Amino acid sequence: MALIQSGHGSGGKLMNDMINSVIRRILGEDSIQQDDSAILDIPAGKIAFTTDSFVITPIFFPGGDIGSLAVNGTVNDLAVMGAVPKYISCALILEEGFDMDDLKRILYSMKEAADLAGVSVVTGDTKVVPRGKGDKIYINTAGIGVFKNNPARAPIETGDKIIINGSIGDHGTAVMAARTNLSFSKGLNSDCAALSNLILSVTEAFPESIKFMRDATRGGTASVLNEITEGKNFGAKLIEKDLPIKEEVAAFCDILGLDPLYTANEGKVIFIVKKEHAEKILAVIRSDTHGKDAEIIGEITAEFPGKVFIKTEIGGKRILPLQTEEQLPRIC
Amino acid sequence: MALIQSGHGSGGKLMNDMINSVIRRILGEDSIQQDDSAILDIPAGKIAFTTDSFVITPIFFPGGDIGSLAVNGTVNDLAVMGAVPKYISCALILEEGFDMDDLKRILYSMKEAADLAGVSVVTGDTKVVPRGKGDKIYINTAGIGVFKNNPARAPIETGDKIIINGSIGDHGTAVMAARTNLSFSKGLNSDCAALSNLILSVTEAFPESIKFMRDATRGGTASVLNEITEGKNFGAKLIEKDLPIKEEVAAFCDILGLDPLYTANEGKVIFIVKKEHAEKILAVIRSDTHGKDAEIIGEITAEFPGKVFIKTEIGGKRILPLQTEEQLPRIC
Repeated sequence: MALIQSGHGSGGKLMNDMINSVIRRILGEDSIQQDDSAILDIPAGKIAFTTDSFVITPIFFPGGDIGSLAVNGTVNDLAVMGAVPKYISCALILEEGFDMDDLKRILYSMKEAADLAGVSVVTGDTKVVPRGKGDKIYINTAGIGVFKNNPARAPIETGDKIIINGSIGDHGTAVMAARTNLSFSKGLNSDCAALSNLILSVTEAFPESIKFMRDATRGGTASVLNEITEGKNFGAKLIEKDLPIKEEVAAFCDILGLDPLYTANEGKVIFIVKKEHAEKILAVIRSDTHGKDAEIIGEITAEFPGKVFIKTEIGGKRILPLQTEEQLPRIC
Repeated sequence: MALIQSGHGSGGKLMNDMINSVIRRILGEDSIQQDDSAILDIPAGKIAFTTDSFVITPIFFPGGDIGSLAVNGTVNDLAVMGAVPKYISCALILEEGFDMDDLKRILYSMKEAADLAGVSVVTGDTKVVPRGKGDKIYINTAGIGVFKNNPARAPIETGDKIIINGSIGDHGTAVMAARTNLSFSKGLNSDCAALSNLILSVTEAFPESIKFMRDATRGGTASVLNEITEGKNFGAKLIEKDLPIKEEVAAFCDILGLDPLYTANEGKVIFIVKKEHAEKILAVIRSDTHGKDAEIIGEITAEFPGKVFIKTEIGGKRILPLQTEEQLPRIC
């Protein structure tokens, strides 16, 4: 079993060999240029640029791993801006003693995710930190997307509908289950996926009617809606009975005292859309692999301006505040 | 003394408050957009895209800190490609318990370095890892540069001159001195600096005569030259008497058994230039603040193809191979 050594992160032969025979070979010898920067052809106009570091534990979990997560997370951050994700970087911080086979498995997973999302890994970096100064592997991906359509969005108004493209809380519960290895955690799978194709099909079909998109990752659905409403003269109402939550996720959250609405997703996007086209947009979303279980889960209201609230199944209303911190650390 | 808590990396209020009241306030409220990605205006044509993670220890050292290093390192990676650095990202991996005042000091340093280099920090990310799973702070910066000039370079030929813009081995020795706090380490300072202006002035003055540029960071001068010559039908000869090495650096290296030619720099670029214009190019480099001590340090030869060698002061020749690993880990 080959292990990562300190020298794999220095500027010598050991590092060059690993970059060439492992990293570039798996992620793409054609796409990753050996120079200090990649040189890319970009059409005139605007680009989207984003970055995310991934420090999730465990690094392998049902439905994905830190590699697919690092690609999909950045792809989705570009896609929700209305951009077509094109290029990503891959910067690794490896802990001394990390298993080289695990690194390869993660790189293959990144490559598969990148191919599925239609992005190329074009540049990278490798650092090694001593044992006890990292945790196996941290990955940073930065991404560049281009615009096929105008990213400008009409303002959010009372009456607009809130749509999510499927079940809520899958990622956070799957990672928690992998951490604890509890007997009642069967069937929990992360929703980790690239949503760029789904988003592109919606924005191309209804360019004027999409008011807002954001992936509901850390902090979950409730936190995204809080960011939208904070300081605004409108509120966001969720309808409890319309929330798509898998039975096993609901049961797991119930036992552990988690709220699925604050639980991380990695393949879910919140759309705020014009009321008149909500049903048609829902149909477009549902026609995508990653949108089959999409639902209209609420609407923008004049009630409770600046707040997010839920209409419960028994008819009550409950505020969903932005929490001080997330329920689960290191979820991405 | 405020310390970083786990919650500063979750998707809740604690994180949002730190991002808004500390990170965005220091790095630039106007430049850092609050969305998932920054949207940037880019002229048609090519862009350069790069990434680097910085895991240096100690995080503060004579001549710089991890913040200025993270900006300058990425700026220089863009500049040596012939690009004008424009935008960078800032992704922080903070260890729980890290001092918030140290974070602020590092962010101010990043901002100052970014302003000096003429780049804007436009997007970022913050993660927190538990104590013992990081080392105070790791920073990833990705960067985007645009091209004012054609980045194509003429091929390297026998007779081309090798120029460096100043003294060799300053960064590695300064960091080593800061680690060990040795009595004989006075006067050692990192050369950490953005070289984008220097490089632009050279490439604009002599677009046809610059064959190659690379910043000599991890692995130092000898490693960069090895990358250039590897597998090629030419060699690289260094002339020992012409190498600009500060007395205190030479003395420090001598005592610790380090070779300055393999010691990291963070403000030095190796130019390979057409023989006929070498002196004029040297004059342009010397007219820049970061090029005052520039020297022609060698040339491309037919001798020893694929190798780097040094002509010593006593007239001998010695091969400088690519080493298996660098002398000092975590130098950047």
